[in-house]
Amino acid sequence: MKKSLGAKTLAYPTPVWVVGSYDAAGKANAMTAAWAGICCSAPPCLAVSIRKERHSYAAIMARRAFTVSIAGQSQVAQADYMGMVSGAVADKFAVAGLTPVRSELVDAPYVAEFPVAIECRLVQTLDLGGHTQFVGEIVDVKAEESVLGADGHVDLSLLQPLIYAPGASLYYGVGPVVAKGFNVGRAYMD
Amino acid sequence: MKKSLGAKTLAYPTPVWVVGSYDAAGKANAMTAAWAGICCSAPPCLAVSIRKERHSYAAIMARRAFTVSIAGQSQVAQADYMGMVSGAVADKFAVAGLTPVRSELVDAPYVAEFPVAIECRLVQTLDLGGHTQFVGEIVDVKAEESVLGADGHVDLSLLQPLIYAPGASLYYGVGPVVAKGFNVGRAYMD
Repeated sequence: MKKSLGAKTLAYPTPVWVVGSYDAAGKANAMTAAWAGICCSAPPCLAVSIRKERHSYAAIMARRAFTVSIAGQSQVAQADYMGMVSGAVADKFAVAGLTPVRSELVDAPYVAEFPVAIECRLVQTLDLGGHTQFVGEIVDVKAEESVLGADGHVDLSLLQPLIYAPGASLYYGVGPVVAKGFNVGRAYMD
Repeated sequence: MKKSLGAKTLAYPTPVWVVGSYDAAGKANAMTAAWAGICCSAPPCLAVSIRKERHSYAAIMARRAFTVSIAGQSQVAQADYMGMVSGAVADKFAVAGLTPVRSELVDAPYVAEFPVAIECRLVQTLDLGGHTQFVGEIVDVKAEESVLGADGHVDLSLLQPLIYAPGASLYYGVGPVVAKGFNVGRAYMD
């Protein structure tokens, strides 16, 4: 028997993506977002939702570009900090001891120390009320060789990306492989 | 040193959400989507991206409603199957041994056996090319008491939601709690 929890943003898992941009003064900034996901295969796009009052909002609007950097589990304090403080009042990269890398493809910085960086060109915005969704076309994904498996794919056991649980407001790690996609479901096919 | 992986939909984690709808014949259908995420707090909204050629596309457009059911790790084969086969040619609920429950709030069914169900009213669509993003306002979240922690929140250690890794195309489980959100980052604040 299911219990009603109400009309709330409770859905699992959500990602922990650190969204990089340059502000009007040219300062590298980054904020952590969990309201986000991949949203199209062709062209490859992802979406991150940001409130209008956030420092990153005007920055992304002006430069039409952003990045997504993905922290490993050991970088949880840095990722959390970047979701707690505004880039309007702090140089978050400097405070967290992180290095902004200027993308050669889009007008935005990514986090050198985080193992994965995704460079995006802003292609759509969608005003949803409290949040505006920024849809970015992925122009490149860059990953440290240390998080790539033997098959050349990012290996989540090596990357150890964070998972955020709304409601409880906890970060979790990734567990073991459960099954192969587009494969284990064959059990139900003729 | 980062290695370029190209302009691809590689971002981690992605969710494994089973999207329920009624088709034109009134048959309950569900398809699994990983291109998805929460996208607004007020009103509470989530987004799922679906290709125009999918059976669910017309269904959601017509009824202006869908649900998201979240499987536990033990239900991975059922969730995977529902992403492999079209509801145009199969009664996926019946084949997978799952029970559609008619939502009392929106015109769509959810999966009785999956621990979490989210009922959504379609509020926006965004054509992105290969995929169309369906933005649903969350009108209720329902969860089995067995996945709720002592604090009343969904406990991911109990729910054990699946995580999908694009590229490698693997399902992973959730690991242990790493840290408390909006808390561990205080290490970098005065």
